[in-house]
Formats: sequence, C-alpha cells, structure tokens
Amino acid sequence: MTSSSDVGACAGPVHDRDWLAAALDRLPAESDVQDMAAVFALLGDPGRLRLLTVLLEGEACVCDLAVASGQSESAVSHALRLLRAHRVVAVRRAGRRAFYRLDDAHVRMLLDLAGTHVAHAPAVRAATAQDR
Amino acid sequence: MTSSSDVGACAGPVHDRDWLAAALDRLPAESDVQDMAAVFALLGDPGRLRLLTVLLEGEACVCDLAVASGQSESAVSHALRLLRAHRVVAVRRAGRRAFYRLDDAHVRMLLDLAGTHVAHAPAVRAATAQDR
Repeated sequence: MTSSSDVGACAGPVHDRDWLAAALDRLPAESDVQDMAAVFALLGDPGRLRLLTVLLEGEACVCDLAVASGQSESAVSHALRLLRAHRVVAVRRAGRRAFYRLDDAHVRMLLDLAGTHVAHAPAVRAATAQDR
Repeated sequence: MTSSSDVGACAGPVHDRDWLAAALDRLPAESDVQDMAAVFALLGDPGRLRLLTVLLEGEACVCDLAVASGQSESAVSHALRLLRAHRVVAVRRAGRRAFYRLDDAHVRMLLDLAGTHVAHAPAVRAATAQDR
C-alpha cells in the first residue's frame, strides 16, 4: 500500500531529540512568524512584486509606478498602502505629490535573493512533475 | 473631496521618463515574476514558515518536523511536497526514511532577512493604524 508519495512517512516516534530541542529553541514567537508570513504573502502577489521590482530603480510617484508595472493607479495605490503598512515601502511627500521607495535594504536583498533563487532553479516546473 | 488616502495620486501624466525607461528595462520576464511570487507565496503561510524555520537547525524527518512545527504529519508532508516542487527544500533518502533540508543558501538568507525585517519594524501594527 506504499506509494512514492509516502516516502516522507516515518516508522516510529520522534527520532532525534537533540535536533528537536534545538529546533524548538529556534522557533520564533508566534507573532513574529505571523509578521514574517504577512510580509512574504505581500511579496507573493505578481502585481505587488512587479511594483517592488521597478522600485529597485529608485523612488517614483503612483502614476509612473502604474505605467511601469502595468497596473491601474487605483491598484497601485491600494498595493502601496498595504506595503507601507508592513514597512516594505516608505513615502516621501513633496507638495501635493508623493514618492514611494523601498523602505530598507532588507527588502532590496529579499527581492535580489528571490531572483537568484528563481535563476538557480530554472527547471522548477519540470522538477515538479518529476518529483511527484 | 481629497482625503488623506488620496495622497499618492498624481496631477499629470508620466513625470520621469528616465526612471520609467530604467524601470521597464529592469522588469523581469513575466514567467520569472510568477516564479518569484510563487516562492514568496509559499513562504507566506505561517505553517510552512514554521517548518522552514526549524529546518534552519538542519535536516529532519517528517515526524520530527511535525512535532517541532506543531502540525500533523499529513500537513507537513503536504507542505514539503509543495516546497520541494519550488526547490525550497530538498530530500535525502536513507532506506525507508526521508530527511528534508533547506535546498540552498538563498532560502536560508531569505528567512534570515525576513526575520531581520520584522525585527527592524517592530511597530508594524501601530504603524498600520497611524499611517492610514
């Protein structure tokens, strides 16, 4: 009754008490896990990701961001509000205009790393079919 | 009729042609955007994130991962299949057992960076209320 999808199942109880103790010790507070997941979830939307990618080029106003990321100004404004709330982007106001930028170096590095990961795993779709 | 939520709106057409040209040039291929978003979306789930966080401690089998991340073995197996398909985790088989690990250094850095970002923005919830 064993299929290849059962390969991960273990025969017995907990096997490695040292690993388990260290892993439990490393687990962040639930509120931090929720905050991290919220940031990743924000970056998990292709529209928001396009927006952040063009912001790697420097600060810009909503209408330029809309053109560059191929979205409506309304969609961009909504995305920017969410991203600001999680400190992924920051705003600078100049008179009646607002310019948005990536909030910190961590965000820039997250985007660069994700790009590197994707470039490093170019056969993701083929692998998906093969590994299952 | 202008509310504070309209602060991002621009008065005119595209303002910065140089930025726009550079931004459009930087925009990745749509397939890469989709792949990056898919990886971030995977990391945007608190359960999967807990799983990846304990994997920072080193490779482990499904039952240890279930205990450490506070999830059922079935939920862990399902999460691991998704994560493997996107090359976020890798598997090593030893007889009938399978050990999972973070696939590459990029994933480790993504997790570290997200943790740093969260630590760097501890007042996210307060800011959310304030900025809107």
